[in-house]
Amino acid sequence: MGPAYRLFYDEPLRPVRAFGTKIIDARGDEYLDAYNNVASVGHNHPHVVAAVHRQLQTINTNTRYLQPDIIDYAENLVATHDAALDNVMFTCTGSEANDLALRVARVVSGGTGVIVTENAYHGCTRDVASWSPASGTGAMLGRDVRLVPAPDTYRYDAAQVRELFLNSVQTQIDDLARRGVRLAALVVDSIFSSDGIYPDPGVLAAAADLVHRAGGLIISDEVQPGFARTGAAMWGYQRSGFTPDLATMGKPMGNGMPVAGMVAQSRHLDAFAEDVAYFNTFGGENAPIAAAQAVLEVIEGEGLMANSRDKGDQLVVGFRTILDRAGFAADVRGSGLYVGVELVHDPVDKDPDAALTSAFVNGLRDRKVLTSAAGTYGNVIKIRPPLVFSQSDTDRLLAEFEHVARDLAAGRSPGRSVSVAGWQPPNRDDLRRLIAEELRDMMGGSRG
Amino acid sequence: MGPAYRLFYDEPLRPVRAFGTKIIDARGDEYLDAYNNVASVGHNHPHVVAAVHRQLQTINTNTRYLQPDIIDYAENLVATHDAALDNVMFTCTGSEANDLALRVARVVSGGTGVIVTENAYHGCTRDVASWSPASGTGAMLGRDVRLVPAPDTYRYDAAQVRELFLNSVQTQIDDLARRGVRLAALVVDSIFSSDGIYPDPGVLAAAADLVHRAGGLIISDEVQPGFARTGAAMWGYQRSGFTPDLATMGKPMGNGMPVAGMVAQSRHLDAFAEDVAYFNTFGGENAPIAAAQAVLEVIEGEGLMANSRDKGDQLVVGFRTILDRAGFAADVRGSGLYVGVELVHDPVDKDPDAALTSAFVNGLRDRKVLTSAAGTYGNVIKIRPPLVFSQSDTDRLLAEFEHVARDLAAGRSPGRSVSVAGWQPPNRDDLRRLIAEELRDMMGGSRG
Repeated sequence: MGPAYRLFYDEPLRPVRAFGTKIIDARGDEYLDAYNNVASVGHNHPHVVAAVHRQLQTINTNTRYLQPDIIDYAENLVATHDAALDNVMFTCTGSEANDLALRVARVVSGGTGVIVTENAYHGCTRDVASWSPASGTGAMLGRDVRLVPAPDTYRYDAAQVRELFLNSVQTQIDDLARRGVRLAALVVDSIFSSDGIYPDPGVLAAAADLVHRAGGLIISDEVQPGFARTGAAMWGYQRSGFTPDLATMGKPMGNGMPVAGMVAQSRHLDAFAEDVAYFNTFGGENAPIAAAQAVLEVIEGEGLMANSRDKGDQLVVGFRTILDRAGFAADVRGSGLYVGVELVHDPVDKDPDAALTSAFVNGLRDRKVLTSAAGTYGNVIKIRPPLVFSQSDTDRLLAEFEHVARDLAAGRSPGRSVSVAGWQPPNRDDLRRLIAEELRDMMGGSRG
Repeated sequence: MGPAYRLFYDEPLRPVRAFGTKIIDARGDEYLDAYNNVASVGHNHPHVVAAVHRQLQTINTNTRYLQPDIIDYAENLVATHDAALDNVMFTCTGSEANDLALRVARVVSGGTGVIVTENAYHGCTRDVASWSPASGTGAMLGRDVRLVPAPDTYRYDAAQVRELFLNSVQTQIDDLARRGVRLAALVVDSIFSSDGIYPDPGVLAAAADLVHRAGGLIISDEVQPGFARTGAAMWGYQRSGFTPDLATMGKPMGNGMPVAGMVAQSRHLDAFAEDVAYFNTFGGENAPIAAAQAVLEVIEGEGLMANSRDKGDQLVVGFRTILDRAGFAADVRGSGLYVGVELVHDPVDKDPDAALTSAFVNGLRDRKVLTSAAGTYGNVIKIRPPLVFSQSDTDRLLAEFEHVARDLAAGRSPGRSVSVAGWQPPNRDDLRRLIAEELRDMMGGSRG
């Protein structure tokens, strides 16, 4: 497998089984999954597995035939969105959904300019990578792609955040215009997960107005906040108070079955459909759609939005208390089961502490709890468990977090001794080398 | 669902169940599937369904964890390729695989030029659509994308085909160079399915030399000919006698479970991996990989390559005999269960007869046999059934084909009366309108 692959953790995990919020590794150890948002209604959820199995025994073909089950799901999905978003197109991945959304935005606006945040990630196709600055320095940004700083609610107050963000958007629109480039779209993840998780900037409705005034579209990338994750609404844009022109969905949509899509105001699709016969072989096949339908039913039937809010609130309060008690400078922010813990060297300068963050993530992994790091400086612990996270899961996560915090505060880990100013990826280069070697060893035998 | 969707046939099919080579529609009628190459080992193949079901009950997560089942499949897949192709990266769709391949080719070659055939189709991401002229006039071709005519073995003899194709490739390379554009890649489907199905042009080894001399890569798009479809080799490039730098796979890989990939000479991946941390959430998940592993086992265990050759040979001979007897001017060509029947007005001018082709496709559909049309002029009947096509399936297809041919020869269908010169899509505009109306009716009720 190609050297562009990366694994998680200093000591990569070897999972062999999973269920609900638990992953079992090759040694038989049980891990608490506080990270995977794909298996959003829980690993191997029986309702989803049964729906897929039933469908695979019935039929699993594509959207070039008329199929009521696919149309039923399309209607059910569209019904969860704002009324203006009345149409859906299915893709296989979130990357394809974003790729499609910007194709549509370019046709509708007649423009090519794209605005995203400085550490945004929207996908891995060539086009989407060209407006995903977090893809790595080798993925060249497009000529007409402009970056704006994420709304950093930790370092600025509400008024400053608003002024900085909106000024940045307008400045980029104006600068594009001075070069004869019309705006196609502002693409935004309304909780800014890749930038470091800022759930409450309160800037997006006003930003949407600026974008519309410039003739552009606003695209809400719901891959992270969508499907009730934030505990406050089914969709991130609903929580953030704006109606996008296009919204894209991915990861949790089929609980691991590959399915994704784009909902749209149908007037936007007419121009696109005029000339392009879009077809996505796997996008909207019956089996992934059966999974997606089952996911909607579980979210509703098990009250996962309320659960997400409840457990998320507990985690935010718990993390704050633990970090205060242990004497760490940190900001804890989140919405539902999307929680970020930003760690800094001191509460005044707020200099990012990526080494401490990495020590927390690997310390939790050693204690059988899976999390990861996010943010431009890699100094935000990302907690994003399956939405079926129970009360005992919550208690266990907080207990282990407290244990790691105490160890680190007592200087028992190397993490505390390294001071980091500015960006430093959490062990990425070392990891890459180790993994390449490990994989080479594992695969070397049979290939000569 | 968006208006860019298209359905098959004048009267769209409403399938509700499938197994093997059969699809059952809402009226309970059984159709012989002579078209779907995704369900390549047969609809709902029990070995594949069981493998997926077992995996969904065990674990279905991503490639950021170490997982022997995924590495095992990677090794098994790579072992079916030429030794030089020693590395694999998984994606979710063939479009993503082609998108990734060209990202790699651009990095490796330092070039941006792309050469494809005039009616090629390689996928639906924005980038891939920009070098897929068959995507429709609204999908703009890239500035550095050059087209060469497909090797038309019906209208030219072997020496002419060779001269025309190789001259065209070299002319485009030279013209790109005159404008300061270096070649990144020639991308080719070795049986030229979208161009009209030309399995035996005998030009690709020489073309690969020209491309390599110019510093470009040759990418074999195996979505159509791969996985034993041609009956002559596991991969199209093996049958056509060249070794590509990168080969991409899709549709039949998981028999309907979304999984795709790119195999590569590993030296090409090093430069790419230097800077880009490629991650595809659904690409290489356990459940799609379980399906892919089961597919390899069925191809081997049920001897599907030999079956494809055997039944394909029978079909070619059978179609030729039937068309001769009925007095139609046609060329029948194919390799294994990828057969094209090109219909023309007369055997001298060879003027494409798209109306007759459409009449055949819809006539077969009326007689419960599913096929489709291909080619630049829409005048090639495309026969591409699941590889488990049995002797009785073959007999049934030939019997129904003969019935339709006789009816059409007797002038009982409107198809014969319409004379078509040059390009005319087979009823597409009418279809689009009808479908849009039908879908609007079906979906209108509940959204008000």
